[in-house]
Amino acid sequence: MPLFTTSRAESVAACGEIELLGHIRRWLGDVAPRAPYGMGDDCAVLPPSPCPQLVTTDPVIYGQHFDDRATARQVGAKLLKRNLSDIAAMGGRPRAAVLSLAMGGNTDRTWLRGFYLGLAAEARRHRVKIVGGDITQAAPGFFGAFLTLHGEAAGPRVITRRGTRCGDAIFVTGQLGGSRSGHHLKFTPRLAEGAWLAQRPEVVAMIDVSDGLAKDLATLTPKGAVASIWPQMIPVSPAARRASRRTGRPSWMHAVCDGEDYELLFAIRGVDELAFTHRWHRRFRTPLHLLGHFARRLAPGNIDWASLHGYEHLR
Amino acid sequence: MPLFTTSRAESVAACGEIELLGHIRRWLGDVAPRAPYGMGDDCAVLPPSPCPQLVTTDPVIYGQHFDDRATARQVGAKLLKRNLSDIAAMGGRPRAAVLSLAMGGNTDRTWLRGFYLGLAAEARRHRVKIVGGDITQAAPGFFGAFLTLHGEAAGPRVITRRGTRCGDAIFVTGQLGGSRSGHHLKFTPRLAEGAWLAQRPEVVAMIDVSDGLAKDLATLTPKGAVASIWPQMIPVSPAARRASRRTGRPSWMHAVCDGEDYELLFAIRGVDELAFTHRWHRRFRTPLHLLGHFARRLAPGNIDWASLHGYEHLR
Repeated sequence: MPLFTTSRAESVAACGEIELLGHIRRWLGDVAPRAPYGMGDDCAVLPPSPCPQLVTTDPVIYGQHFDDRATARQVGAKLLKRNLSDIAAMGGRPRAAVLSLAMGGNTDRTWLRGFYLGLAAEARRHRVKIVGGDITQAAPGFFGAFLTLHGEAAGPRVITRRGTRCGDAIFVTGQLGGSRSGHHLKFTPRLAEGAWLAQRPEVVAMIDVSDGLAKDLATLTPKGAVASIWPQMIPVSPAARRASRRTGRPSWMHAVCDGEDYELLFAIRGVDELAFTHRWHRRFRTPLHLLGHFARRLAPGNIDWASLHGYEHLR
Repeated sequence: MPLFTTSRAESVAACGEIELLGHIRRWLGDVAPRAPYGMGDDCAVLPPSPCPQLVTTDPVIYGQHFDDRATARQVGAKLLKRNLSDIAAMGGRPRAAVLSLAMGGNTDRTWLRGFYLGLAAEARRHRVKIVGGDITQAAPGFFGAFLTLHGEAAGPRVITRRGTRCGDAIFVTGQLGGSRSGHHLKFTPRLAEGAWLAQRPEVVAMIDVSDGLAKDLATLTPKGAVASIWPQMIPVSPAARRASRRTGRPSWMHAVCDGEDYELLFAIRGVDELAFTHRWHRRFRTPLHLLGHFARRLAPGNIDWASLHGYEHLR
């Protein structure tokens, strides 16, 4: 099912704004509450909450975050999941989202239906409400969906990217690399894991790996220190191994540079790494890997991060 | 100052993501708090609030909401003001915003600086913090800025678009029409007026006029009723008169169809209209106009709304 159509009858332009909004309400179903707690007024109203509020915003844009290989439902789900992964990385619980859509008048209505159904299914899974939005016509051939997700701290603590020191142990969930071959559409945001980690005092800082470990780990690394990690410690995904066979680069390089892993990267302090791993596995099936630790300088054979880079957003 | 440049050295693509983020922090200055209360972590954190929370989202897209006649600062200010107008229409107080930017690599850096300075100046004026966002590269020649604004009820009451009845009197602030000749960049969001109106029990419903009175008034009109208004009661702006001389259509038609007025339209009940107007003018210099009232049927000479329409978002 292509995103754009040459048939005017099947395009969003043919049905007009009011009819389209009616369709969208139906596609979203119970995920879209009524105004003023949802779509249909100047603003959406969220009930007050005693917890610190979390806000994050990430889009999906045709040609940037997906292409013709993705199904419409996968694109809708990815839009929400990208944002859920940010909430997970702060140890939060998602709540409500608004969606600003810019699209060419030649966007296919059936494709758009799939997009909203995929978004709604993912929202239902995580009890997120779609409470408002905007639709703007853009040039033909453009499709961009800009979502802002609101959440709240799942417990007394919000966990940030700051606070690491030399000696802290570095962990990552799941496997890394080769995401473009499919994982970027199929990943599961680590919400339960993030909420649990944020409430453990030994976890000092956390981030989600979206731009690649090489880049996101730098954000977590304390000033004047390095991340001392051997390439053998990197959990390389099968997709990264396949990519490696195509490109001839080592598979661990794909694992740390490709990006869009949406795994949790965090540092712990003051507890035994093995005991921590045991505690984790009593609770979660999600793989967990000890990568190494922050140190004053690299050890021989460590990955030389300065020679690598993750995903560059502007080129 | 054109939005796009043919010189790579002057483009955003030349400076790369990390340098650009540094520039943006400087341009925003005190408007951008530090993480976790602002940019720089997976989510922004907003302190809890005992009030109902308001959320609205509106973009500015090149070719749709502005063109080469607008200065970069005007575009940045318009982005926030469009959203402020929605907060005003619920009687709210703005708080914090996140901004998702999609732009071609050929976007001019000096233009972008102006855009952020315009946004920051407007944010400062209304004590809004820019707490987070995202930057994504789009195709050359595209520029879209998607803002989500958070606010809270300014008093015990949030005012919605619902609740009108036959007999309610209809008021509008300011003057209407011809916005495209400049007003759409220069308007003042009616925040103080909206907050005051929301706390008056006689005000039953409110909306901001963004798609034209013809369309937005329909949203406020109770089922089975009409808005009984004579063309002479419409406050026609000088720009609408000029547009009328160009097009040959009556100036009141421009006033009710052009859109982008960003004035407040509301209905009152149970108090004398003249007494209400007096109370208004003791408080505000903003013009206020009684338009008519909701009735069972149109009176002879009334505007026939069914024959008109406001701004259509999809064509």
